[in-house]
Amino acid sequence: MQTSARNAFEGRVAALERGAVNTLVTVDIGGDQTIVATITNDSAERLGLAEDRDVTALIKATSVLVSTAGDNRTSARNFLSGTVREVVPGAVNSVVLVDIGGGRTLTATVTNESVKRLGLEKGSATAGLFKASAVILATGD
Amino acid sequence: MQTSARNAFEGRVAALERGAVNTLVTVDIGGDQTIVATITNDSAERLGLAEDRDVTALIKATSVLVSTAGDNRTSARNFLSGTVREVVPGAVNSVVLVDIGGGRTLTATVTNESVKRLGLEKGSATAGLFKASAVILATGD
Amino acid sequence: MQTSARNAFEGRVAALERGAVNTLVTVDIGGDQTIVATITNDSAERLGLAEDRDVTALIKATSVLVSTAGDNRTSARNFLSGTVREVVPGAVNSVVLVDIGGGRTLTATVTNESVKRLGLEKGSATAGLFKASAVILATGD
Repeated sequence: MQTSARNAFEGRVAALERGAVNTLVTVDIGGDQTIVATITNDSAERLGLAEDRDVTALIKATSVLVSTAGDNRTSARNFLSGTVREVVPGAVNSVVLVDIGGGRTLTATVTNESVKRLGLEKGSATAGLFKASAVILATGD
Repeated sequence: MQTSARNAFEGRVAALERGAVNTLVTVDIGGDQTIVATITNDSAERLGLAEDRDVTALIKATSVLVSTAGDNRTSARNFLSGTVREVVPGAVNSVVLVDIGGGRTLTATVTNESVKRLGLEKGSATAGLFKASAVILATGD
Repeated sequence: MQTSARNAFEGRVAALERGAVNTLVTVDIGGDQTIVATITNDSAERLGLAEDRDVTALIKATSVLVSTAGDNRTSARNFLSGTVREVVPGAVNSVVLVDIGGGRTLTATVTNESVKRLGLEKGSATAGLFKASAVILATGD
């Protein structure tokens, strides 16, 4: 499925935890990395989600925060560590590409002021953070 | 109510589904289109939400993904199909206006790279996707 | 903790309300202002959240809507009133800095079209709105 989401990670469902309204889905994307998504129960049923089902996790670049901390001290369920591969500056925002290993890149849209404040440049050790609520799961091609 | 949200769709509450913390609200915006919102129970009570109540669904352009797929194979509860009316290019992001019928336009902020990759231009068949958690409901004027 | 989030407000946990999947956390940031966050129960446990715990509330500028209404008639749990301090225009988006008192600034990314439509300029009475689901909580330094 083709979408504008800059971040699309293929994986398989590792776990499902169903609540009253929402289901928490853990997606194994390989390389010891997982992505956690909160979706409505209706969507989990409509997509026929079950363990081992192939899914793609989509995250808009605008939903991703960048952090220079080495470990996750935030409530964000998703914290993918890596190295800045490139910073593409715009008028007020920059696009930051973070190499998170395994040939994967996490893309974040960040204001130029934050790029400057964090001193982000090619090679900076950094992590991309995003909430479980920011993740959309897709099935099929 | 005047807000910066580029997307503001008037409708009425068609259904409410209450969980432990959150309520799922289905809003009928006419033309056989609905928008689903996840809001906290406290907000549902504070706004006095009930079936048939008039509400406006607000969605920031940065929360909207654009897809060229014909049907929704994602967990996004909201998938509004249409045709690209205009692409307004910026330095790193473009604003994509999607005509979703009934005189309505859905606006998405998308990186220029995605516009190029998806080949988005005036007339492209496309859909706007957003999560129920991205929707804010407003009441009153 | 250093992140790209333009909005980082220090405070302490005033209340926790646990659901099946999510916990609603109310953070007192002083000056009679609170921020409400929805996080997963796992994150609340991992961070050891409890009443009076020091936390920082992080909100990306792209998650913040700006409103010229005087009171909150929306489902957004967070509504911080203030005055526009500066509008930094870009190619398609502007960064709007809202002085919310107590030496605090709330930053929102808004399309230029919305800045124009709302007539936003230095001194405009305005409020920043964001959903509980848009807030990330951080602990430690």
